[in-house]
Amino acid sequence: MWVLVATFLIFFMHAGFAMLEAGQVRSKNVANQLTKNLLTWSVGVLAFFVVGAGVSAVVGTLTSSGSFAPTDLYSTMTTNAVNDWVGWLFGAVFAMTAATIVSGAVAGRAKLRAYVGYTVLLAAVIYPVVTGFTWGGGLLAINPESANGWIADVIGAGFADFAGGMIVHGMGGIAGLTAAYVIGPRMDRYNADGSVNVIPGHSMTFAALGTLILAFGWYGFNVGTAASVFAVEDGSLVLGAFDTVGRVALNTTLGMAAGAVGAGLATLYKTGKVDTLYVANGLLAGLVGVTASANVVVWYGGIISGLVAGAQLPFVFEFVEKRLKIDDVCAVFPVHGSAGVVGALLIPFFHVDGFSASLLAAQVAGVAVISAWTVLATGAVFGLFNAVGQARVSPEHERDGLDVSEHGVDTYPEFGTPDTVTDGGSDVVRMDGGTAAAGGIKMVAAIVRPDRLGDIKQSLAEAGAPSLTVTNVSGRGSQPAKTGQWRGEEYTVDLHQKVKIECVVADIPADDVVEAIRDGAKTGEPGDGKIFVLPVEDALQVRTGNRGPEAV
Amino acid sequence: MWVLVATFLIFFMHAGFAMLEAGQVRSKNVANQLTKNLLTWSVGVLAFFVVGAGVSAVVGTLTSSGSFAPTDLYSTMTTNAVNDWVGWLFGAVFAMTAATIVSGAVAGRAKLRAYVGYTVLLAAVIYPVVTGFTWGGGLLAINPESANGWIADVIGAGFADFAGGMIVHGMGGIAGLTAAYVIGPRMDRYNADGSVNVIPGHSMTFAALGTLILAFGWYGFNVGTAASVFAVEDGSLVLGAFDTVGRVALNTTLGMAAGAVGAGLATLYKTGKVDTLYVANGLLAGLVGVTASANVVVWYGGIISGLVAGAQLPFVFEFVEKRLKIDDVCAVFPVHGSAGVVGALLIPFFHVDGFSASLLAAQVAGVAVISAWTVLATGAVFGLFNAVGQARVSPEHERDGLDVSEHGVDTYPEFGTPDTVTDGGSDVVRMDGGTAAAGGIKMVAAIVRPDRLGDIKQSLAEAGAPSLTVTNVSGRGSQPAKTGQWRGEEYTVDLHQKVKIECVVADIPADDVVEAIRDGAKTGEPGDGKIFVLPVEDALQVRTGNRGPEAV
Amino acid sequence: MWVLVATFLIFFMHAGFAMLEAGQVRSKNVANQLTKNLLTWSVGVLAFFVVGAGVSAVVGTLTSSGSFAPTDLYSTMTTNAVNDWVGWLFGAVFAMTAATIVSGAVAGRAKLRAYVGYTVLLAAVIYPVVTGFTWGGGLLAINPESANGWIADVIGAGFADFAGGMIVHGMGGIAGLTAAYVIGPRMDRYNADGSVNVIPGHSMTFAALGTLILAFGWYGFNVGTAASVFAVEDGSLVLGAFDTVGRVALNTTLGMAAGAVGAGLATLYKTGKVDTLYVANGLLAGLVGVTASANVVVWYGGIISGLVAGAQLPFVFEFVEKRLKIDDVCAVFPVHGSAGVVGALLIPFFHVDGFSASLLAAQVAGVAVISAWTVLATGAVFGLFNAVGQARVSPEHERDGLDVSEHGVDTYPEFGTPDTVTDGGSDVVRMDGGTAAAGGIKMVAAIVRPDRLGDIKQSLAEAGAPSLTVTNVSGRGSQPAKTGQWRGEEYTVDLHQKVKIECVVADIPADDVVEAIRDGAKTGEPGDGKIFVLPVEDALQVRTGNRGPEAV
Repeated sequence: MWVLVATFLIFFMHAGFAMLEAGQVRSKNVANQLTKNLLTWSVGVLAFFVVGAGVSAVVGTLTSSGSFAPTDLYSTMTTNAVNDWVGWLFGAVFAMTAATIVSGAVAGRAKLRAYVGYTVLLAAVIYPVVTGFTWGGGLLAINPESANGWIADVIGAGFADFAGGMIVHGMGGIAGLTAAYVIGPRMDRYNADGSVNVIPGHSMTFAALGTLILAFGWYGFNVGTAASVFAVEDGSLVLGAFDTVGRVALNTTLGMAAGAVGAGLATLYKTGKVDTLYVANGLLAGLVGVTASANVVVWYGGIISGLVAGAQLPFVFEFVEKRLKIDDVCAVFPVHGSAGVVGALLIPFFHVDGFSASLLAAQVAGVAVISAWTVLATGAVFGLFNAVGQARVSPEHERDGLDVSEHGVDTYPEFGTPDTVTDGGSDVVRMDGGTAAAGGIKMVAAIVRPDRLGDIKQSLAEAGAPSLTVTNVSGRGSQPAKTGQWRGEEYTVDLHQKVKIECVVADIPADDVVEAIRDGAKTGEPGDGKIFVLPVEDALQVRTGNRGPEAV
Repeated sequence: MWVLVATFLIFFMHAGFAMLEAGQVRSKNVANQLTKNLLTWSVGVLAFFVVGAGVSAVVGTLTSSGSFAPTDLYSTMTTNAVNDWVGWLFGAVFAMTAATIVSGAVAGRAKLRAYVGYTVLLAAVIYPVVTGFTWGGGLLAINPESANGWIADVIGAGFADFAGGMIVHGMGGIAGLTAAYVIGPRMDRYNADGSVNVIPGHSMTFAALGTLILAFGWYGFNVGTAASVFAVEDGSLVLGAFDTVGRVALNTTLGMAAGAVGAGLATLYKTGKVDTLYVANGLLAGLVGVTASANVVVWYGGIISGLVAGAQLPFVFEFVEKRLKIDDVCAVFPVHGSAGVVGALLIPFFHVDGFSASLLAAQVAGVAVISAWTVLATGAVFGLFNAVGQARVSPEHERDGLDVSEHGVDTYPEFGTPDTVTDGGSDVVRMDGGTAAAGGIKMVAAIVRPDRLGDIKQSLAEAGAPSLTVTNVSGRGSQPAKTGQWRGEEYTVDLHQKVKIECVVADIPADDVVEAIRDGAKTGEPGDGKIFVLPVEDALQVRTGNRGPEAV
Repeated sequence: MWVLVATFLIFFMHAGFAMLEAGQVRSKNVANQLTKNLLTWSVGVLAFFVVGAGVSAVVGTLTSSGSFAPTDLYSTMTTNAVNDWVGWLFGAVFAMTAATIVSGAVAGRAKLRAYVGYTVLLAAVIYPVVTGFTWGGGLLAINPESANGWIADVIGAGFADFAGGMIVHGMGGIAGLTAAYVIGPRMDRYNADGSVNVIPGHSMTFAALGTLILAFGWYGFNVGTAASVFAVEDGSLVLGAFDTVGRVALNTTLGMAAGAVGAGLATLYKTGKVDTLYVANGLLAGLVGVTASANVVVWYGGIISGLVAGAQLPFVFEFVEKRLKIDDVCAVFPVHGSAGVVGALLIPFFHVDGFSASLLAAQVAGVAVISAWTVLATGAVFGLFNAVGQARVSPEHERDGLDVSEHGVDTYPEFGTPDTVTDGGSDVVRMDGGTAAAGGIKMVAAIVRPDRLGDIKQSLAEAGAPSLTVTNVSGRGSQPAKTGQWRGEEYTVDLHQKVKIECVVADIPADDVVEAIRDGAKTGEPGDGKIFVLPVEDALQVRTGNRGPEAV
């Protein structure tokens, strides 16, 4: 029962990742990022159901006792035991967490098909191999009832990772870094001389919301894991394990807080200001930092792990960006990768049972094995996509944004364009230059109601002057002021929303254009607007270099 | 205990609906949509408390054994048994889910009073009748301990709907479609020739957030229902039923994933692109598709139900939009209505106990009865509102948006208007035309600090030139560049936010206007801006047709 | 177990507060508000861990039996009992809720260091004293097994506050009001004549989202508390207490609904319209109103408490704003403060055991003591910060917004400025006036691709004309129309996003500027844009008063 609540919380982390990543990308790539997040879950969970869970079990036995049961490969589909289903689902939400981290690193340029293809492989093979090595009883695990994993047996200690600080987050962060390296940085991210351009995201609010949703879900991630061992077994609560739950909840809370504080202090030291995004990222890095260790470290171990995980953020990010020249858009490596590694390596130093050298050896070995496998597998997959030219969108698509080029979608259709409906006579464009009318070039500027724009476009096109520029403005004229409310209190809004239309014409008389606009704009009510004609001395068309009336 | 967690999760779906619907409407209707969502819950839950729960019980007994206990009508208020309260609350969150679906279909034109009135009736009567027919032991139910429902008795099988795929979602979707039909499409949605205009929503990000919140809450909806039967009974977990929970969790997850994939593939087939909104809607449709069946179908039944529910979306939506000419703003019929019907009808084919013809008959009968009742009741209520002219806002209000006309509110007060405070001397507008000053018509254009706008409006009004146009611009002049940060890294912001003010004057000297603007704009610091005077050759007032100085 | 779920839900309220407050502040202060919310949790929870929990215990014993155990002060750090950890965490999320309320009142002008300093003191001392007085068994509590609190002993009844309606919310609201009074209103909030300017927030959608997240978390707050007493004790569910849970869930739901309805009706009465933000705030006020009483009042007591708490909102807010002249940005006093007081005082009238005068006396005494302590402590802390000039940012910083001045951050970097990368040659600005070229002053206006802006800025600077104005426009020229999609349906986008660049020049030939722009703008593809030259008759630099060519 409890394990299901934890599972739901972990599932909800997808909402967190979606908002966090959407907030950190440009507005032209938001819908693409959202689509990737939705498909990560949808496609990935099916892949994990059909193949992934089985692969994990098989890798687990192959790299320890060496035995191999082919039926393990599809046991998820043949079982009828409810605990297997719940256990599978619990594993699936972890797997999808690892997968979705990668999308943050390759934002803004990875092709949808490449990303989805990689996600399928990650859910079906790459991640299951890692869990097979560890939780699945394989390479890095000490097994009480069967043969130990090969490496764990040599060291004499198993790799300790409570809830996936390294297995899930570290792995995801390293995979993201590798993928971002292989497909290369976004256009204009680096100048020719190697200097760096900053490309801010589009909404700090969504990033902060995503952060807090993730932290909420993380309690399921960590505390849920604490209770899962026994909860899956018999569907009810065994009291003995409640101890672990308390320690985990405490360390998770302290690590999260310390991570935000650590990152805040680090940015205060670096730039003299407390950076909002780093505080948010630091909170997550602090959570990553205690995820591997929350069940076995003392409370000040939790605080220190969180502090270090948070404080390393700005330095590791700078190193990745300026030295490695890797464009990790959402900083997934510092937040999940290096924080996960740090957290896993700190366990032996703050263990409730005291320091253990063999545990340290096991941790180093585990981090090395998982990192190596992740880099190789991810590099191979994206390298292959690269080789066949399918890893990355074309420069034109990247410039236009992936929303419109990959999905045909505009995330905020009202932002920057006042056009609402599909009309406007773009089919009657005339391409001939015409001849200059008497009086030279004129600019006709009109301030009109926004909702008349469609009609005006139509009548301008019919008048032979389809070229126009539209600007959102607000104006005060003879229209009476409106009353706005905020919290029930009224205030005067004497500036009404309008659009300004500018047409420059040479070959047709300005008067015709004025009349055309008036035809489209008129409703007869106050607020219809005004039209002005301004003289223009010269004109130039950028592409052709034509000047004067020819250019218009 | 568990049933309460599930209840909270289902309650949280209101946040999901609020965001999903807000994202899919125009920015001018967002506050209205949010208000409707808040009031649906608030008004509806009171109506369901006072009347609805009782109506459900009475309908249940009336359409089976035929007995009628009037005390049932207000038992919620007289009980003292905690299980009754928890059970009522669990019922209430289901009822409110059905109610809130309707708001998505009638967005952008339904009057608040009509919508709230309908919600009261839905919560008090329309939905309780449906649950009375089914879960309440009535018309469509087989009752082990009392007389069967009349129809169920004839067929020999009861209508199977586990968690409300048809009873809640199907009913809500059909009600939404009916309501949208009765009140008619939004203005400009259809052209005179019957062709369709697309009116995009205002934020894909909110729509995606809402989707993921809904999916999170849905686990409570489905899995919570699985456990509710016994949890309400004695407040703790009965182990036997844990079986169902596992199957439900599995089918819910697989159906959701398959729905997103199904919708994505269908749009890829139709338009060659993976549509973000359809993937999101498909995820929900997949959930709807398995909601009726999650406890009794095999795992591939869950996948297929989800796939079909997702894949039908674009086709059903197109049919509703282009053939039926119904303006279902948030696509609630394809997502909840037809997906719910499909899910209910597919149960007999993938039942763990094998195919059953009588169950299929029961499902067809159930869908028919619920649909008929919903269409009739909803049509009657909105038809009545229509008849008295209270169903729909006036065209002016619709054009201005329901936010300002129904609530006096601007959802994003800073979007498109730089005006922040209630000042500006709109009380000193002079209405006389004046006489043309020497030198003809001039345009005075000033680039100034945004926060000086109020003062400038005031001094312009005092100078007798209150008409102006304001544009948000950014500029670079003698003001030193600022430093921005993203993730603690600095970048140069050498374009400062400014507003451009344009006044066209004829009757008063341009110099007076220049001085008036300067008076308002001056702070003495670099960055105060510049003012230019441009010649204007002609002017026209759209409403009156006045030309030249008269028009200004 | 259950107490942990409740704890997570309460933690999630931070996401609610973050969104609610972010939505209610100007866009220029959003990142600051988000940072404050993140740091409230992070810094506060550490302070509460190290000091706060101990202070509460010590105050509890000191003000009842008078005994004092110094080890209580740091027991949280030395305990190994899991229940202590879980209990501490449960207390911590309550404490942080009280702390974060304050940030909503002082938004837009409090210095980060003052706010964080106050939060540390609140978490370490101010709030723990309040809980020490009450839940901790101190001043206002009747203790079955030890000496009663001094005041409670005199009255013969303990202060009743179930889940912190007064202790958490009332205290937070009163602290917020006090803090807002001490640091004074935002600039331009009040005119010189005492009249009020309305400063709307930036996003109703985020405010509504925050409201619904809070309501979701509130179920954990109230219902979680109902179950916490026994859940902490032995880690599993004791059935007897389930009774309380049902009543609490019912009253919480009804109070919330009644609060929204009450606030909606009050605004309908006051302004003739249902105000969206007040409905949202009313829902929260209704929750506050039943938080103190949910376990002991009858169901109509819950409804009435909610109604009153909701309906008082507009009146109390107006009183605070217009009479007290306190600028409570997010209305935290009416929503949390007065609603909490009202809820606590109404308990005796609707108690399931009937009216009790001694309970009323205890409630009045409790509200008085908590209010007095909160006002004094908060006033002292902010008064001290005020005295050393650290309470409030400078007027320039306030005008620019706290995002850029305190954090160097722009929440929506794409809003209002098309500049994306760190280039543009601001280092080659020439400051000499130059001499007027032949032909007088000209305005060069260019409509170009947004992504060429950086290059154009560079080439303009090299041409000696660095001053420019940039406007986001959309235009239709010879570039082919694009196709947008919404829900898979295509629509024509024939207006392309462009930027308009305007340079006014006098000393260098307009032709040079035209060529410079062309150099930067040219890509050779259709859609490169056009450049126009307009005559300017006069110019004025606002700061210096220079006119003509000198001004340019």
